[in-house]
Amino acid sequence: MSANGSRSEDEALDSPALKWLREPAFRPDSAAREAALAHQAQLTKPPGALGRLEELAVRLAAMQRRSRPALERVRITVFAADHGVAADGVSAFPQEVTAQMIANMAAGGAAISVLAEQIGAAIELIDLGTVAEVPAHPRIRSSIIAPGTANLAQGEAMTSAQLAQSLAAGFDAVQRAVADGSDLFIAGEMGIGNTTAAAAVGCALLGRPAADLAGPGTGVDAGGVARKCTVIDQALALHGAALGDPAAALARVGGFEIAAMAGAYVACAQLGLPALVDGFISSAAALAATRLCPGAGDWLLLAHASAEPGHRALVRALVEAGTGAPLLDLGMRLGEGSGAAAAVPLLRLACALHANMATFADAGVAPKSA
Amino acid sequence: MSANGSRSEDEALDSPALKWLREPAFRPDSAAREAALAHQAQLTKPPGALGRLEELAVRLAAMQRRSRPALERVRITVFAADHGVAADGVSAFPQEVTAQMIANMAAGGAAISVLAEQIGAAIELIDLGTVAEVPAHPRIRSSIIAPGTANLAQGEAMTSAQLAQSLAAGFDAVQRAVADGSDLFIAGEMGIGNTTAAAAVGCALLGRPAADLAGPGTGVDAGGVARKCTVIDQALALHGAALGDPAAALARVGGFEIAAMAGAYVACAQLGLPALVDGFISSAAALAATRLCPGAGDWLLLAHASAEPGHRALVRALVEAGTGAPLLDLGMRLGEGSGAAAAVPLLRLACALHANMATFADAGVAPKSA
Repeated sequence: MSANGSRSEDEALDSPALKWLREPAFRPDSAAREAALAHQAQLTKPPGALGRLEELAVRLAAMQRRSRPALERVRITVFAADHGVAADGVSAFPQEVTAQMIANMAAGGAAISVLAEQIGAAIELIDLGTVAEVPAHPRIRSSIIAPGTANLAQGEAMTSAQLAQSLAAGFDAVQRAVADGSDLFIAGEMGIGNTTAAAAVGCALLGRPAADLAGPGTGVDAGGVARKCTVIDQALALHGAALGDPAAALARVGGFEIAAMAGAYVACAQLGLPALVDGFISSAAALAATRLCPGAGDWLLLAHASAEPGHRALVRALVEAGTGAPLLDLGMRLGEGSGAAAAVPLLRLACALHANMATFADAGVAPKSA
Repeated sequence: MSANGSRSEDEALDSPALKWLREPAFRPDSAAREAALAHQAQLTKPPGALGRLEELAVRLAAMQRRSRPALERVRITVFAADHGVAADGVSAFPQEVTAQMIANMAAGGAAISVLAEQIGAAIELIDLGTVAEVPAHPRIRSSIIAPGTANLAQGEAMTSAQLAQSLAAGFDAVQRAVADGSDLFIAGEMGIGNTTAAAAVGCALLGRPAADLAGPGTGVDAGGVARKCTVIDQALALHGAALGDPAAALARVGGFEIAAMAGAYVACAQLGLPALVDGFISSAAALAATRLCPGAGDWLLLAHASAEPGHRALVRALVEAGTGAPLLDLGMRLGEGSGAAAAVPLLRLACALHANMATFADAGVAPKSA
């Protein structure tokens, strides 16, 4: 197993198709950050009284390289794919639901569709490969890699070529978002079985056993969680030391959509586009991105703390990588990008307060006593 | 002191001007609640996966007596007044800031002005009496009771007649909101010194010492917090057992704007209008409302957990009164209604998801396995 591990690790790292991954992260602009901080101190409120809304405005200023940040154009890209590990009974829903939900998202009936409309975000749906057929629809971009991954508990979930395709799908989506003038990128996902793959990726990156990251997902009972743990621990044993490399971890125990999200977050860091990270699956991908691309954490904002118990461990590691703490904690555990979409209005309010409040001088208000 | 206490307690309770306070709270509609719950179970997501957004939609359905709640018209009423206790050096800002900030709110430069515009809320500013002069402005309603309260540490902050006027100002504001077709009421406040008065009201209602509720407010240092504690403990000793009655507590150690907010929350419960409660000051007023009007907690939603440390004790008591836990926790401590305004988009998203998501049947999506 460890011989097998070493081979694949080298393969993943050396592939010419993955060379772009090693481009460095952009740096947030410290002059814009300082200008935003100085402006905050002039606004008609006690210093710090808007709490994290102040911090958000200042971080976004540094990311957008301007003292008055704004989030007019928000792009949501949902990556969807099926998972071979679903055969092991790790989900409460049948596998054909992945394709059905892509159609539901395209038709406007899914949570993320409703949220995108409410916040005025552009939404793009990317089919990376499902077991059931996805009907053609103008909102669905077909980038099929394979009809789902192989079972991660029995072998590598995907080949190196498939990993490169998945990561590139993420990079391409962010490039389109940048070309479209987007101010903020949100990655969403859909894939029956993907909390199992995300937990496995998290275990690989954090060096933890399955019990620390596996949870009920869409709603399996205690028996289902135990099954997920068995499957993940089996995968961790099978793939062994190879999982120490983040690209290899994505290929061996990840999923097409998880790798695509990781590629998207790396691209956001490289191209300087702020990304708002959703919940459990997104955070596993985001953690992989911070391991693939040092400095990527500067470009990631955590939207919410998921109700999925293993999210806590991912959040701790992401906060260490510079993302800041999650903004919301509403017991959400849907995925699709829904928690990130729900946090967008707060970011916009932070920008509006920063840009539109009067200063003490403007308003003739006496500042705090010395 | 306790003889003085008894006299005033009776006075406050028996005043004919306060008779309306004893009208019962409206009851949220259980049929609408059940219909909303049943609808939630049909939506294309794992049951419970939208967390508190589901709970919010269901509670709002019961309050609005319809299975599909909506929050189109939001009313923000800011009550402003000065406090005699400011003379004891309990604030980081000079007292003339109350009047200056009312003018800033009217001109659109305060945080609550920016937030109201962003969320499309109607805003009303009510001047209940300040030390400095408030300039005339079409957005400012002058309902002056007196140029600030008396010093609560040296006597009753207001007379029974002033209490009745303050409470009625809140009732009238809610009546105007109802007449205007509002779907949600937010009370905001402005008043230099009012974290001291709110802490004193909280201590009175909860039977706690000052140290449990007093905090830095707009930003006093440790010495300032100690001064607040001394002043509040002095007030608690002075007014004694009389503070056991919530109306007497508002009159003796409250403020015009705090009593007005309490009256507004009681009116919301009596007239059946959902209210979104802001932070520390608002919560002290809301707790008084739940003591004045049993069942009022059903009509209150807590927008956020304030950074003011004493808020925790108020929140615990409000949750016991049925309000549900705070929605946001962003380290905000500004008041004005700002934390409540920041939570409005979440409530609207909860309503939109509830109303606009497809059902499993509509979308042809397979539900969760049995």
